[in-house]
Amino acid sequence: MNILYDERLDGPLPEVNKAELLKSLQQALPDLDILWREDELKPYECDGLSAYRTTPMLVVLPRRLEQVQTLLRLCHEHHIPVVARGAGTGLSGGALPLEKGVLLVMARFNNILHIDSAARTARVQPGVRNLAISQAAAPFGLYYAPDPSSQIACSIGGNVAENAGGVHCLKYGLTVHNLLKIEVLTIEGERLTLGSEALDSPGFDLLALFTGSEGLLGIITEVTVKLLPRPQVAKVLLGSFDSVEKAGRAVADIIAAGIIPGGLEMMDNLAIRAAEDFIHAGYPVDAEAILLCELDGVEADVHDDCQRVREVMTRAGASEVRQARDEAERVRFWAGRKNAFPAIGRLSPDYYCMDGTIPRRELPAVLQGIARLGEEYGLRVANVFHAGDGNMHPLILFDANQPGELHRAEALGGKILELCVQVGGSITGEHGVGREKINQMCAQFNSDELLLFHAVKAAFDPQGLLNPGKNIPTLHRCAEFGAMHIHAGQLPFPELERF
Amino acid sequence: MNILYDERLDGPLPEVNKAELLKSLQQALPDLDILWREDELKPYECDGLSAYRTTPMLVVLPRRLEQVQTLLRLCHEHHIPVVARGAGTGLSGGALPLEKGVLLVMARFNNILHIDSAARTARVQPGVRNLAISQAAAPFGLYYAPDPSSQIACSIGGNVAENAGGVHCLKYGLTVHNLLKIEVLTIEGERLTLGSEALDSPGFDLLALFTGSEGLLGIITEVTVKLLPRPQVAKVLLGSFDSVEKAGRAVADIIAAGIIPGGLEMMDNLAIRAAEDFIHAGYPVDAEAILLCELDGVEADVHDDCQRVREVMTRAGASEVRQARDEAERVRFWAGRKNAFPAIGRLSPDYYCMDGTIPRRELPAVLQGIARLGEEYGLRVANVFHAGDGNMHPLILFDANQPGELHRAEALGGKILELCVQVGGSITGEHGVGREKINQMCAQFNSDELLLFHAVKAAFDPQGLLNPGKNIPTLHRCAEFGAMHIHAGQLPFPELERF
Repeated sequence: MNILYDERLDGPLPEVNKAELLKSLQQALPDLDILWREDELKPYECDGLSAYRTTPMLVVLPRRLEQVQTLLRLCHEHHIPVVARGAGTGLSGGALPLEKGVLLVMARFNNILHIDSAARTARVQPGVRNLAISQAAAPFGLYYAPDPSSQIACSIGGNVAENAGGVHCLKYGLTVHNLLKIEVLTIEGERLTLGSEALDSPGFDLLALFTGSEGLLGIITEVTVKLLPRPQVAKVLLGSFDSVEKAGRAVADIIAAGIIPGGLEMMDNLAIRAAEDFIHAGYPVDAEAILLCELDGVEADVHDDCQRVREVMTRAGASEVRQARDEAERVRFWAGRKNAFPAIGRLSPDYYCMDGTIPRRELPAVLQGIARLGEEYGLRVANVFHAGDGNMHPLILFDANQPGELHRAEALGGKILELCVQVGGSITGEHGVGREKINQMCAQFNSDELLLFHAVKAAFDPQGLLNPGKNIPTLHRCAEFGAMHIHAGQLPFPELERF
Repeated sequence: MNILYDERLDGPLPEVNKAELLKSLQQALPDLDILWREDELKPYECDGLSAYRTTPMLVVLPRRLEQVQTLLRLCHEHHIPVVARGAGTGLSGGALPLEKGVLLVMARFNNILHIDSAARTARVQPGVRNLAISQAAAPFGLYYAPDPSSQIACSIGGNVAENAGGVHCLKYGLTVHNLLKIEVLTIEGERLTLGSEALDSPGFDLLALFTGSEGLLGIITEVTVKLLPRPQVAKVLLGSFDSVEKAGRAVADIIAAGIIPGGLEMMDNLAIRAAEDFIHAGYPVDAEAILLCELDGVEADVHDDCQRVREVMTRAGASEVRQARDEAERVRFWAGRKNAFPAIGRLSPDYYCMDGTIPRRELPAVLQGIARLGEEYGLRVANVFHAGDGNMHPLILFDANQPGELHRAEALGGKILELCVQVGGSITGEHGVGREKINQMCAQFNSDELLLFHAVKAAFDPQGLLNPGKNIPTLHRCAEFGAMHIHAGQLPFPELERF
């Protein structure tokens, strides 16, 4: 799926002699675990976006801060690029290694340092798994809200680097909204504290700047997150619709009614049938779309909101609205949703998962636009996504063994993201830009904006050693890629008809 | 109150010929309103922090974006510093003009451009008053949550520049948490869009970086904020305590119990008596401290939470907990709090309002530390503040006509802020750094962190023309000021005794 990416567009990387580097590292850090043999490097050649693969020059697995500090100073001195990696579950190739760079694996920094139940905070090392934080907080009745689908495996350091989301972001915000403080190392090995345990921190908000910066500004070495009290109850409603447009309308109406669900997810017919066939969740296989709406909080509040959501869905044209009768059915409803990606994987040899966000009011129009683009490119597209916050995950089905299909899938994906930009949305919701969407960044931002990103990058890393070729495209790349910056509503998209 | 500020520490500003500049401006922008006569300039010589005064060289009052753009290009070309000003209600001298600079007043950009009730957003010009947004949203049952005490007068552009807070920040967040998108102009007159209407925006989070940057990075020309549905009901409890420590403990316990009040405010005896004498709110004048705790949301939820807060306050040692019997009493309870500053103004010829934040668990210790510092400096300190989010507003009472008192008040204020930093807090919660607290920034940040701020600043404004001498101190200033960076818990403060 690497067709549209051409690393020459990002300029040449420095020439590095692997043997010499290895020797320097071993001398400077005799107790550091370094992987350098071909067979040892193999497991690190991709992250969760397995279509992109590169063998790293070296992999290092430090356990102590001082090791990371010395490593960074050494790489800085010798102009060697460094790519940081957490658990390697990212979906945009943000932790994809470089042939001429060091892959810095932070997985062994996996200690929970402190849970402060009174302040409702957790201070942890970056390699701690997302779910492990909630597990450690559970005895206090607390949890960490952002819940990416990979939460069993993904690490909090990677969550911060990608500003990860999840099913509950609509109500509880992205990673950036649930952070208090991080400790980082610059490429020169300097320790910085960004944010504070207090409400606000003076000076520029470097904590927010760092969150989602995808390893381009520094290495995260410690994270302090906010914890929330577990909601008393959670109920799920399943609404069935005979068109995706009606379901899209219901989403907009639920939000407009002032209800903030814990989760609000949509699946279209292709996704419904795939999931039902795989999980037997009890989904209506004839529906063109379903909405799963979870309401959480205190009993009385949830009861009232369930009534209101039922009414709104019905008014928007739902043919049926069912409330999960018990906890077992609630879990089954969610299991279908959470396994929708692998379920669709059973329908097609390959699929390509997109991650665009749009203003909620554009949902019906964009869903229709995607259907038309799918027809035009001759590929099926399934839709399973966080409808409540407008974060879409169109899944493009294709067969890489059919000549041209891989290329068509990638081109269709690019078109869908550009459609998102055109209606005022963005090319990523929670998966990040990484290497995968670096070309679409040329559509999202104009050259003044990109130059500003480069200037900010240079403030932290003037030599461009941290994760080069990811997140922020060079102007050269944008010129070669030929993408024009798209202003919302500016270019006419024939695919887009307003209702 | 300008004793500790010495502008020579920030390096010389460029020499500007006022007559020439005026001529250039009049030629380039014949329809721009420019004030240049001494008597016209007078009203602009300070902002809400009236102790600092400087007469601006010129004041410009543009009405159209193109005027601002041309002005900035001209200032950039001639190396003329520009200070932006909204309504001039800021409390840290962030909009204090420069003798050798242009004061750019954005007050005439005061149109509400669009209220989208379905998306729950408002798109407004930067000069729109904070309260005007909620008024315009009211017909849709919506409001804009952040509510600085100056909300009748302060402008949303200034709110963004200072990352303003208010009584309801504990539950609803600061300005940065309620923003979607801003349009800005760089010092070179380039238009940038930061953020988007979608959930997340790729690339670096420049929207958050810009928020609270106090006019150092660019000029805000448009703001899109999130709106919230009005809560169904709001109730207020008033708890009386025989010590500030017990009240501080109750605050920590309320939060630890998983309750998130709409507002949670503390007043100490000096403040209680002053407010009661002025407003007749019905406060217990013998109490050493009171807590005002507002709970808002749906009826049943608020009812339950009121019970729980009452129990928590009682367990923490409250001598009495009263619930406002009706809306009239609720309003009266708040009127006392909102008028506490002018009320205290009646006790003393002068007062100096501080704005530090601390982790909530440190409230009892810091309140005792402040009392000891007050004794040491021989000055009375009243405490009225947003206890729930640890945002303190100690008010130092003094008489500027008594020799040495002004200086003592300023020195005591500095000590209090350093105490906040020492316990892991910060030197500002919602008032910003501006000119007032620029020296304390040397205590808050180390030189690596300050250098990074300067590098980020240079990414936007390499010549340093936007609001020089505010927010981020030069390293030269920190060296001259002699302040050491304080690590939380590092330096022993004799004032601080842990309980």
